[in-house]
Amino acid sequence: MNYKAVFNMICRLLLIEAGLMMLSVAVALIYHENPAPLLITIIIAAAVCGLGLFFTKGDKRIYAREGFVIVALSWVLMSAVGAMPFIISGYIPSFVDAFFETVSGFTTTGATILTDIESLPRGLLFWRSFTHWIGGMGVLVFMLAIMPLSNVRSIYIMRAEVPGPTKSKLVPKMKSTATILYGIYVFMTLTECFLLCLGGMPLYDALVHSFGTAGTGGFSIRTASIAYYDSAYIQNVIAIFMLMFGVNFNIYYLILIKDLRSVFKSEELRVYLGIVAAAVIIIAVNIGGMVASVADSFRFALFQVSSIITTTGFATANFGKWPTLSKTILVFLMFIGACAGSTGGGLKVPRIVIGTKSFFNEIKRLLHPRAVQAVRLDGDVIDSTAARGSLIFTFAYLLITAIITLIVSSDGYDPVTSFTAVVACISNIGPGLELVGPTGTFAMFNPIVKLFLSLAMLLGRLELFPILMLFLPSTWRRT
Amino acid sequence: MNYKAVFNMICRLLLIEAGLMMLSVAVALIYHENPAPLLITIIIAAAVCGLGLFFTKGDKRIYAREGFVIVALSWVLMSAVGAMPFIISGYIPSFVDAFFETVSGFTTTGATILTDIESLPRGLLFWRSFTHWIGGMGVLVFMLAIMPLSNVRSIYIMRAEVPGPTKSKLVPKMKSTATILYGIYVFMTLTECFLLCLGGMPLYDALVHSFGTAGTGGFSIRTASIAYYDSAYIQNVIAIFMLMFGVNFNIYYLILIKDLRSVFKSEELRVYLGIVAAAVIIIAVNIGGMVASVADSFRFALFQVSSIITTTGFATANFGKWPTLSKTILVFLMFIGACAGSTGGGLKVPRIVIGTKSFFNEIKRLLHPRAVQAVRLDGDVIDSTAARGSLIFTFAYLLITAIITLIVSSDGYDPVTSFTAVVACISNIGPGLELVGPTGTFAMFNPIVKLFLSLAMLLGRLELFPILMLFLPSTWRRT
Repeated sequence: MNYKAVFNMICRLLLIEAGLMMLSVAVALIYHENPAPLLITIIIAAAVCGLGLFFTKGDKRIYAREGFVIVALSWVLMSAVGAMPFIISGYIPSFVDAFFETVSGFTTTGATILTDIESLPRGLLFWRSFTHWIGGMGVLVFMLAIMPLSNVRSIYIMRAEVPGPTKSKLVPKMKSTATILYGIYVFMTLTECFLLCLGGMPLYDALVHSFGTAGTGGFSIRTASIAYYDSAYIQNVIAIFMLMFGVNFNIYYLILIKDLRSVFKSEELRVYLGIVAAAVIIIAVNIGGMVASVADSFRFALFQVSSIITTTGFATANFGKWPTLSKTILVFLMFIGACAGSTGGGLKVPRIVIGTKSFFNEIKRLLHPRAVQAVRLDGDVIDSTAARGSLIFTFAYLLITAIITLIVSSDGYDPVTSFTAVVACISNIGPGLELVGPTGTFAMFNPIVKLFLSLAMLLGRLELFPILMLFLPSTWRRT
Repeated sequence: MNYKAVFNMICRLLLIEAGLMMLSVAVALIYHENPAPLLITIIIAAAVCGLGLFFTKGDKRIYAREGFVIVALSWVLMSAVGAMPFIISGYIPSFVDAFFETVSGFTTTGATILTDIESLPRGLLFWRSFTHWIGGMGVLVFMLAIMPLSNVRSIYIMRAEVPGPTKSKLVPKMKSTATILYGIYVFMTLTECFLLCLGGMPLYDALVHSFGTAGTGGFSIRTASIAYYDSAYIQNVIAIFMLMFGVNFNIYYLILIKDLRSVFKSEELRVYLGIVAAAVIIIAVNIGGMVASVADSFRFALFQVSSIITTTGFATANFGKWPTLSKTILVFLMFIGACAGSTGGGLKVPRIVIGTKSFFNEIKRLLHPRAVQAVRLDGDVIDSTAARGSLIFTFAYLLITAIITLIVSSDGYDPVTSFTAVVACISNIGPGLELVGPTGTFAMFNPIVKLFLSLAMLLGRLELFPILMLFLPSTWRRT
């Protein structure tokens, strides 16, 4: 482990975070709020990290191990720093609560411990939603923007950061990849913001909800979430943009280079949209008797399906009151999650596809033992190591969900609350069912449970491995 | 598909079933009950199958495909025939209900639709519990007893029948294997029956509950299950025997040949007992405040943990009222299940071990990309096809659980009832939580849901593949 290089990189990232926090200071000043909690955080972070940079000059070589550690530690430390304004301002006095809330922000989960969101000042709420946006494309993009292009080893960071098993690389050069992803991300965020303003949403509201959508986060500045905006137009715009941010960004790159054939060939995209369509239709029929019109039932169904499968977590209805079938569908969508290479969480669609195809292959293999069949995605053979890796990931994801559910259930809340709280955290969704449903919060859990739920969010967001490596002694051995 | 050979074999098995039903006739006569419903079934089955045998003489060659089809169809048809006495007698007038109850018997699930078990005559209740015992060691053993030893292809049936990924073969020759397994099974059943009688349980009760334990089934002749027998001795005897029937029968063979070193080396056994010990301790502490003494809390915890992990399903307490932590542990034990090569169901311990080890290997592979590591069980390398097969099975098991849960949840009962009903069926346990808890039944579900739950029981019992193959057109192609 090259400690110097690791700490050097983390200091750079925290400095960038401090810089980004300045935007929230500006927002606070615009609304005549006290910017001190934000400024104090910025000054402390800048001072400590500036000193840190000075003392960690030298050997910059990083390998796989260092890459994973940088990714994992930077998410933890950025969350700790990002939590400070909430603590200093006194709006979230408990460190654990503030840490939970900020991890929830950076991991784009959107689970909250706030029971009265509207009481917070606008500068802090801007920062809270901005963490979603920063988290959305990940520390990676920052790293790529500040790392010398010559350092080819940054591929390892990419590997840890881009969510899900991506089949094809975007473009060979990492820096131009980062720029392209960044451009698409900014463009889509601004487009959504513009469309929301067109629908009559105030600019501030439009901006924070666009941040929440882009990162598939789900923090709202309203306790009632998107249900507060009683406009079918606004709800539909957000629903569509959630779906779009859940699509593999490869698809947008393919559209940019006008390779539409590959877009239509994408099995991941077709399965993703197929699941969404099926879920929307079943839920719309299932909740038909509870709403005023057929159009309403489809609007509510589309919004909630988009929100859950993309792991955003916005709500326009209290789906906790929906029939069991609809709730069960939503819980399974929580596990499935969005496409790989998107800002969404969960197991990711291609893992479900690879698992299902492997299973059908296994049946065929038993019937025709001599026939060799490979799993294909978009017509290309998935090599057996990748297929196995995908299955192992799925197993580990469910095992970790089970273990953390055991810990959470020791708090004594009902099984549905305990289980869906963990799923909502590890899949980076936000709301679950019952007490942690769309009208509930995570405030009632005890601090240790909140830390384990924060761990679940980090595990889910970073695809398990980087965070787990922090607990392996061999990770910390000097080279 | 060699249809003649398949139907010939199924006819033989149904004839054996009819023969075994004679025992229930004897029981009915002993208790001066009307044996007509049983006798009518026996006569019809004998007549139809006798004719069937006559018309299916000839080519007896069977391959993998035929083996799987024989196993799958014989379980379905034996259940249909076994259900007839319940229908004819009028005690379970609906065909779907009687089929559900008998599938539950043969698959050693123990889920019941009976709300007043004590109202049934003793002959029928004997048959009901006897299906557990027959199912326990599986149709296989019958097949091996009647198949010519020369037919080496029966290995395929073994492959489909012996539950779980067994690492080592018992002995090369199938017929002697069957005899040994059969001997161990009978000996352990009789020992349990004897010990229960010693504790003051009437012979009839001791016999049927030994059948339920041996098959890890869980049908009781008492609505209150084992809680009816208010004796710590009886409850502990059953708890220990449930645990023993959940052990891989390889272990007993190793004990028979005095290879104790291999017994102690068995990781599966150690993990199994480790999980049991951990679960018992946590639950005993967790329910400590609800029972009279520490001894009681350990007795209740041991019984329920044994009952659930071995997928038996007997109950001495209404664990639906236990704290969330205890209930959550029990639900996870439902998924884990017993050892491979036992009469228990579930995912089976070695699959959990292989999945977990594969996961740790994957972490190490990411840290040290050039190091090659294999998954080992008992010190031996698990070949990658077997490891992958184990992961695929786990994925498919959970996917099928999810899909059937969706279907069951359309019935509108609460999510915990819907979900645990499916887990209790696919893992062949019996009781779940809430409405299908230890004091509840499966009676309220609509007939279509009951058929899907029956399907879940069959899928779980036969390790998914044989049943799924019935739905593939290529299975039915003539050769």
